[in-house]
Amino acid sequence: MVLGIGDDAAICSVPSGMQLIICTDTLVAGVHFPEQTAAADIGYKALAVNLSDMAAMGAEPAWMSLALTVPEMDWDWLQSFSEGLLELAAEHGVSLIGGDTTRGPLTVTVTVQGFVPAGSVLRRTGARVGDDVWVTGSLGDAAAALQQYKHGPMQSMKLRHRLDRPTPRVAAGLALRGLANAAIDISDGLAQDLGHILSGSGVGAELELGRLPVSASLLDFHKDDTARWALQLSGGDDYELCFTASPAEAFAIEQAMAAAGVTASVIGHITAESGLRCLTPDGEHLALEQTGYRHFAEALHVH
Amino acid sequence: MVLGIGDDAAICSVPSGMQLIICTDTLVAGVHFPEQTAAADIGYKALAVNLSDMAAMGAEPAWMSLALTVPEMDWDWLQSFSEGLLELAAEHGVSLIGGDTTRGPLTVTVTVQGFVPAGSVLRRTGARVGDDVWVTGSLGDAAAALQQYKHGPMQSMKLRHRLDRPTPRVAAGLALRGLANAAIDISDGLAQDLGHILSGSGVGAELELGRLPVSASLLDFHKDDTARWALQLSGGDDYELCFTASPAEAFAIEQAMAAAGVTASVIGHITAESGLRCLTPDGEHLALEQTGYRHFAEALHVH
Repeated sequence: MVLGIGDDAAICSVPSGMQLIICTDTLVAGVHFPEQTAAADIGYKALAVNLSDMAAMGAEPAWMSLALTVPEMDWDWLQSFSEGLLELAAEHGVSLIGGDTTRGPLTVTVTVQGFVPAGSVLRRTGARVGDDVWVTGSLGDAAAALQQYKHGPMQSMKLRHRLDRPTPRVAAGLALRGLANAAIDISDGLAQDLGHILSGSGVGAELELGRLPVSASLLDFHKDDTARWALQLSGGDDYELCFTASPAEAFAIEQAMAAAGVTASVIGHITAESGLRCLTPDGEHLALEQTGYRHFAEALHVH
Repeated sequence: MVLGIGDDAAICSVPSGMQLIICTDTLVAGVHFPEQTAAADIGYKALAVNLSDMAAMGAEPAWMSLALTVPEMDWDWLQSFSEGLLELAAEHGVSLIGGDTTRGPLTVTVTVQGFVPAGSVLRRTGARVGDDVWVTGSLGDAAAALQQYKHGPMQSMKLRHRLDRPTPRVAAGLALRGLANAAIDISDGLAQDLGHILSGSGVGAELELGRLPVSASLLDFHKDDTARWALQLSGGDDYELCFTASPAEAFAIEQAMAAAGVTASVIGHITAESGLRCLTPDGEHLALEQTGYRHFAEALHVH
């Protein structure tokens, strides 16, 4: 960055040989997070969902701009919001280069820019028949937290933390350059997001539900397999990575993910037959409505 | 652009030797535009205000991303909005590279990226004592339209058009590279925005109010000099450029502005004495509260 906040726009330099990766995501109060979410968590999450997109591209995040609309200038709120945002930014070496603060209903738009060496970007379109399908971390925690939220006071702070403070898998994304054939981040639910890889690559997939990685907290609250699988397949807000890679790379990927400090699991494989098939541990096909992410306001029937 | 909409993020290439210029601006319904503004005008203006920032940097706009929050998916509205946005984008060769559409109170955030040859960027900090102070176009029309809006049905569609569809002075900004010492766009009112140049450059300025460029429409509705000067100095939303340049460049600037298809006027000069002084045609000092831009909701006392 040459010049950040303080002129009409920011001035930045892109290192030679690097492609610029740009993504924008908006969080709206009452739609993308419960109204009473802590300001620091809103700041954190607004950046996290964008860093997750960077991770899915194998990009190294560099700069962000912030467009913040707030109902009133509440300095305590703004201070907390900034702390959450800047905490995560510092963790990933992301500079705030500018933005715009306006008055109105609470809405946060963050635009993140990052780099990837030309030709090394991870795309949705490269999955090949026979590839393993992988996911990082564990699935379903955020959706379970949202479900608990609908039913009153939160029961599990661990699950709630996964909803409020998702961990963008940036290091994993960087480590997957040259190893993964296709990648996406899971924001709208595994079934829907993997579906984008499948349609983009012109292939299908078969998943083994018994191999879906599950946290201890999720297992505590959802012992029924089918209900839990539904959360894991269709719940949103996990912000884990889903990627495909040749089985020949499995060992290299295990090592790369360990070095990146994240677990990763093979949950199925890519097939020539299109569509997504889910097999139970008993080898039965499970038909799941691939409803994808239901924003919590929809889940609450608020329209 | 290598890849636009359709993956987790856009992939772009920055030409070598170019610096990347990035700006973000948000428009909130009821704050930055009247609620009943036509969808096409909202789309147009959301880009125009960002292109105006590009112009002020002497940058050539290249890409935009759009974060659009809408209360409901009204396809007619979205179609009109897109038409307004894309009409102006096409005019300036700007590609839509991605974005995010969310549900919530109407809020539009556009992020525009552009290029400038390294070292050629126009800044706020370069004004020198003895420089001429220039503005493009004419001042005060948008503020007059806003004032009419407060008092009921619009009287002048010409003024209203200047509020709804400001013309970003992109060609003028490009033409000013190497000629202007400092530049800014006038979004919050001349006094306030020129004030940023003055404080950034550590100088002052003296303006001749009789030289402030005025449109025929504005003159029609505001024959009283002092009231009209107040609009021109403190009204916002003009999106003209204010810049300073050595008097030795005056002829080159006249030619460059004519080639860019915009009028430009010298309205005063930069002084060593700090602060902004305004002289009437009679040579008297006029003390004006430099209130700057009052968002129309504030003007309406809506809090």
